[in-house]
Amino acid sequence: MKIWLVGMYGIVASTAITGAMAIQKGLVDKTGVVTSMEEFKEIEKYVPFSFQFGGHEIRLLEGTSYDAALYHWKELRHYPREILDSVKEDLKKIKAKKGTALNCGSGIDEFGKISTLEQEGLKLSEIVERVVEDLRKFKDEDTVVINVASTEPVAKYSEEYHGSLEGFERMIDEDKREYITASMIYAYAALKLGIPYGNFTPSAGSSIPALKELAIKNNVPHAGNDGKTGETLVKTTLAPMFSYRKLKVLGWMSYNILGDYDGMVLNHQDNKESKVISKDSTLEKTLGYSPYTITDIKFFPSLYDNKIAFDFIHFQGFLGRKMKMYFTWDGIDAILAAPLVLDIARLLLFAKKKGVKGVVKEMAFFFKSPMETDVMNTHLQYSNLVSWFKSLA
Amino acid sequence: MKIWLVGMYGIVASTAITGAMAIQKGLVDKTGVVTSMEEFKEIEKYVPFSFQFGGHEIRLLEGTSYDAALYHWKELRHYPREILDSVKEDLKKIKAKKGTALNCGSGIDEFGKISTLEQEGLKLSEIVERVVEDLRKFKDEDTVVINVASTEPVAKYSEEYHGSLEGFERMIDEDKREYITASMIYAYAALKLGIPYGNFTPSAGSSIPALKELAIKNNVPHAGNDGKTGETLVKTTLAPMFSYRKLKVLGWMSYNILGDYDGMVLNHQDNKESKVISKDSTLEKTLGYSPYTITDIKFFPSLYDNKIAFDFIHFQGFLGRKMKMYFTWDGIDAILAAPLVLDIARLLLFAKKKGVKGVVKEMAFFFKSPMETDVMNTHLQYSNLVSWFKSLA
Amino acid sequence: MKIWLVGMYGIVASTAITGAMAIQKGLVDKTGVVTSMEEFKEIEKYVPFSFQFGGHEIRLLEGTSYDAALYHWKELRHYPREILDSVKEDLKKIKAKKGTALNCGSGIDEFGKISTLEQEGLKLSEIVERVVEDLRKFKDEDTVVINVASTEPVAKYSEEYHGSLEGFERMIDEDKREYITASMIYAYAALKLGIPYGNFTPSAGSSIPALKELAIKNNVPHAGNDGKTGETLVKTTLAPMFSYRKLKVLGWMSYNILGDYDGMVLNHQDNKESKVISKDSTLEKTLGYSPYTITDIKFFPSLYDNKIAFDFIHFQGFLGRKMKMYFTWDGIDAILAAPLVLDIARLLLFAKKKGVKGVVKEMAFFFKSPMETDVMNTHLQYSNLVSWFKSLA
Amino acid sequence: MKIWLVGMYGIVASTAITGAMAIQKGLVDKTGVVTSMEEFKEIEKYVPFSFQFGGHEIRLLEGTSYDAALYHWKELRHYPREILDSVKEDLKKIKAKKGTALNCGSGIDEFGKISTLEQEGLKLSEIVERVVEDLRKFKDEDTVVINVASTEPVAKYSEEYHGSLEGFERMIDEDKREYITASMIYAYAALKLGIPYGNFTPSAGSSIPALKELAIKNNVPHAGNDGKTGETLVKTTLAPMFSYRKLKVLGWMSYNILGDYDGMVLNHQDNKESKVISKDSTLEKTLGYSPYTITDIKFFPSLYDNKIAFDFIHFQGFLGRKMKMYFTWDGIDAILAAPLVLDIARLLLFAKKKGVKGVVKEMAFFFKSPMETDVMNTHLQYSNLVSWFKSLA
Repeated sequence: MKIWLVGMYGIVASTAITGAMAIQKGLVDKTGVVTSMEEFKEIEKYVPFSFQFGGHEIRLLEGTSYDAALYHWKELRHYPREILDSVKEDLKKIKAKKGTALNCGSGIDEFGKISTLEQEGLKLSEIVERVVEDLRKFKDEDTVVINVASTEPVAKYSEEYHGSLEGFERMIDEDKREYITASMIYAYAALKLGIPYGNFTPSAGSSIPALKELAIKNNVPHAGNDGKTGETLVKTTLAPMFSYRKLKVLGWMSYNILGDYDGMVLNHQDNKESKVISKDSTLEKTLGYSPYTITDIKFFPSLYDNKIAFDFIHFQGFLGRKMKMYFTWDGIDAILAAPLVLDIARLLLFAKKKGVKGVVKEMAFFFKSPMETDVMNTHLQYSNLVSWFKSLA
Repeated sequence: MKIWLVGMYGIVASTAITGAMAIQKGLVDKTGVVTSMEEFKEIEKYVPFSFQFGGHEIRLLEGTSYDAALYHWKELRHYPREILDSVKEDLKKIKAKKGTALNCGSGIDEFGKISTLEQEGLKLSEIVERVVEDLRKFKDEDTVVINVASTEPVAKYSEEYHGSLEGFERMIDEDKREYITASMIYAYAALKLGIPYGNFTPSAGSSIPALKELAIKNNVPHAGNDGKTGETLVKTTLAPMFSYRKLKVLGWMSYNILGDYDGMVLNHQDNKESKVISKDSTLEKTLGYSPYTITDIKFFPSLYDNKIAFDFIHFQGFLGRKMKMYFTWDGIDAILAAPLVLDIARLLLFAKKKGVKGVVKEMAFFFKSPMETDVMNTHLQYSNLVSWFKSLA
Repeated sequence: MKIWLVGMYGIVASTAITGAMAIQKGLVDKTGVVTSMEEFKEIEKYVPFSFQFGGHEIRLLEGTSYDAALYHWKELRHYPREILDSVKEDLKKIKAKKGTALNCGSGIDEFGKISTLEQEGLKLSEIVERVVEDLRKFKDEDTVVINVASTEPVAKYSEEYHGSLEGFERMIDEDKREYITASMIYAYAALKLGIPYGNFTPSAGSSIPALKELAIKNNVPHAGNDGKTGETLVKTTLAPMFSYRKLKVLGWMSYNILGDYDGMVLNHQDNKESKVISKDSTLEKTLGYSPYTITDIKFFPSLYDNKIAFDFIHFQGFLGRKMKMYFTWDGIDAILAAPLVLDIARLLLFAKKKGVKGVVKEMAFFFKSPMETDVMNTHLQYSNLVSWFKSLA
Repeated sequence: MKIWLVGMYGIVASTAITGAMAIQKGLVDKTGVVTSMEEFKEIEKYVPFSFQFGGHEIRLLEGTSYDAALYHWKELRHYPREILDSVKEDLKKIKAKKGTALNCGSGIDEFGKISTLEQEGLKLSEIVERVVEDLRKFKDEDTVVINVASTEPVAKYSEEYHGSLEGFERMIDEDKREYITASMIYAYAALKLGIPYGNFTPSAGSSIPALKELAIKNNVPHAGNDGKTGETLVKTTLAPMFSYRKLKVLGWMSYNILGDYDGMVLNHQDNKESKVISKDSTLEKTLGYSPYTITDIKFFPSLYDNKIAFDFIHFQGFLGRKMKMYFTWDGIDAILAAPLVLDIARLLLFAKKKGVKGVVKEMAFFFKSPMETDVMNTHLQYSNLVSWFKSLA
């Protein structure tokens, strides 16, 4: 299949491409790839493990996917260098198209020099057309778009322009660019062309009514938001335990530090807001009540893409006794996220082939803020995903 | 209902009795009591939240249940003193019968002075008769026996004496006391009299074929072994997450420290063996493969019944990258265990009323080494328990 | 000796009073009291362990010190209730005078109803006079004032009014109350009367030039700021280790949560600022360079006065390798702070008796932001304190 | 200077050699090298940072130091591969001599195939002679021997053979090999030839009276035992804090896991004993009393040389209140140890040049079980080391 990655030279995309290529060459196994498990073995018939990549970017555009991968590898050394060397030629053939960063917030300044379509002085409709054109040239029947670009600020919702497809397209025509963000443009372009869209970030993407309408109209499946890779994964796995035992959670502290671009961008208050909202509601939905919570993400440069989460749970048991639990998650974000990008792409394509359209809420398993469902419990999500897959396969 | 507690002056039993009385008086709420949740509300019709207690002990026999509760409270102060004061008169009426500590290992020496039936120079058949007699006098139609005594050493299995009810009773007649442990005597006495038996410890209890045969023959339900209260509860909740994401667990360290009698007893290598076996197999059954594991329990006197577990998980993700997770569980064992004693008793009585006999494997949720099932995943266990309950209620 | 406590009904003061009384009665030992160690045994000749208390407050003024102690005990149960009962009569005799909360920030709102001198419509000079009068009535030759009130916002520095004693007194006369905070009033009153002043909070207190001038003029010793009780104590003990081994600290995260009034007050950005500044500079002064740092304090209500600190140290060793260290401090702030209040009072009185005047920088051991010294290394501070004491005793 | 490393193909030695070469070539800086600090700058006049290496080994003897370094690097990747490539030619010139493993315990079996002098059927005196001969050929005026071989079991002490130099040499002559261990042979050979000896392991080495006598007789300085690199370093830095504040340590748990040869060897009870003894006494000597302690080291294969230490400190404060502290040390043992090997060698040669003979107890800073001193406090050790150095330089 073909995957179009928005934010293609970022660390998640680079790692996904490198890993996919390395697995295809038999250099490494499929550890971390959910769809390689026994439960999903039927997927091989519909979407074999074989990938081609394209994508949009706003930085490092002079180079190739190899340069981007090498750039990140030098900072993080998150896998053996031999792997990168072995797929060097494949990666050198992959080159990103210039994308858009419309209303992506002040965090984007951290990237240094960027090149965007809007810098060319284009009207909104022209920007959209360029994105559509890039996708049209790349796509075939088996193509999916996945957004792995940096987190955008919370978009200000406009009932007029976001509430219906008609309004959305009118917004484009009227060049009301203050109401649109880059992720909406990418999602619109994909769904317009009948390409499934997966939103791995907390950005708006396809989650506004207008684009949900478009997906249904064009019979396209889509899924999101915000890949569940670390602290939230653990939290939504663990929190149900307190419910099952009728232990009362008094408070839950989640404190995350990381040091790559994502961390820098999130250090900007406007960009952080979407992330924290996305993380915060999970606990309430999992427990059924709202304990006191602290959820924060801070930049810690020397860690680069090594994300460390510190969680503290204060809970109350029999006879009112307070007790404590702590966990520390010391993970590499790109390593945890990259295989899920491949999984989401495969499952969206599988869904399309099975005639599924609109939000695939059974894919909640992959997201911190799954659309159109309140199922946050990781165990239920997994069980729902397997059942859904088996019922269609 | 009536609950007969083996190890009645221990900290778990004392806390369960105190808590049950305090809840009945409306002094505290039912936090920590699983059967008080919405999912189990039908149980009130069959087994209302109303308890009377009796039990066996081998120490502190000169006093009452109040003296035992006060003794533990002074060391641990694990709940507000006001609660104990409020139920003082109720507890003063509860007095243990002298029990047996046959083959309970060297750990029992830590108790100091003990009084047992075998010290009276009785034959095995006479010891059994005395235990049966105590139970016969106490029991009514709504009685359950729960074993919360200290962990026994692993009993040496004898096909001849443990393999069939006939052999087991011949062992008693022939006074072959080297093949029996106290927990088997209590389980035998209970099942003989048609009383459901719950084994909250890793000791043999009703888990040998002879006693399973007896339970079926007498139409009695039973359950065990080893209450899942702390580190194993977390472990069996968390481990499935690694499976769902196809992350490979390379190693899992579980290191527990605690300081009460249980800790002292477990510091004796013979007594510790059953506990560590009980904890160790859970991971293999949860993950489906055997990572390298360290499982250990050590005595740490100043903690008394405050059990702290240190867990470290080394796991491998995409592209072979190793990552780390740590958790620390800082719980009060008696507080976590006590309400489960009430839950197990209620559910066993409910099962009996519904005509269930033999091992209730749907009660695996409460145990580290559940009998006759390999379901260790806490989420599946909870879901199985709820389904079972609802199907009968 | 006599100790006048500013913030007398707070948890630190209440615990200090309760503890001092309990030790005097022989109910508990002197664990936690630095001046009870062998190295300071000569202090008994100058300042025996025998205390009387008075103080200022702005809340709970209808009750006595016993009511305040009971109030905090009920929330935290940080020591055996028997101790409080035993000193009940002594505490009932201690009653606070109404104080001032001038420019104490928005955090003070958390106290609910408060009563202050300024609410009586007094001019600044009248407020000062009332404070002086309260102290004058209480004091004898062996009296010390210790400020344990909540953290004030950073006072805006005014060269005109803070830079000299003359200016400071002119500010009072001219009623320029926007330049003064409560802690300055208390410090001024104490030093004016020749009473040593210890500032256990990060508030300005006696640290402005005007009051340093007054201390020298009146031959009074004073010390501060901000009692070093938990995370900073560990940090300044541990950080030198990295220096000794030439390991490079890349980043140090210090994240603190607590839930009492102090936590509520610190959740107000204006009040928090002084605290974070106080904590932040310690690392630079200890290491000799400025690694990346995160220092934060957040409110976590269910912990009450149980302060938990999460620290993460990212450091680099031989061949550029990055490594990690984590620590978690689970302490009770009042328990850690209370004995230091007694120590600081004793040592200030000892200093006065030995003719020391001005800032006692050898008392840096007790403070997060010691005045007039850059020695932050706990080991050096301790060694300096012992040497200073021995040279005078 | 020249350094002769016992255990030259081990991970510590390999990393020390690689690092020394890389620093000499200007590829990396001197992070982690204590003697590169300002305080020790005078050492450049006596012992410039310039090294040649030789050593003894019992495995991998067919290869060179490069093969050994590559072997360890592939498992651990503890520094950038580029560094190893850059010093490849230098390392290829370094080749170990066959050594001895006399009485090195069952742990040595983990190495697989080994080659030792004793396998040649030599008498003890011949083994000693071969070791002496190897050293004689290598040494010049500026040579030091450092033992970085695996931990030996506790040697059984013999007053007759260990108590005096005469007895020791008689033991060699009479071939009483059951009383000698490899480390004693290396220490004897070094001191006999007037070469300073540093013992980086907890093995006996030069710590027996006979060899101390030899060192004095031959005017040679020596130092040991057991490099203080991780958990003990932190422990001896942190423990004094509790003393300074008169907080009572109730218990201290130290639990270490690691996965390289050292871990495998320590998993053998006989070899572990010396290590645990070495670690355990430190706390008593630092605090001045003996709290309850747990000190353990376990093998955890997937970590290789990444040593993780879990420490828990239970302590008591004012009014008897118990509190908790935890720390986790996630370090790379070879990275922490390697630069100290260079430091110890430099300082021993400096000592020799300044006429120091016998145990250099001021070098306690580098060791877990320093000889002839009870100073365990890291801060005092550092201060003593600096003072000693400055007084001589």
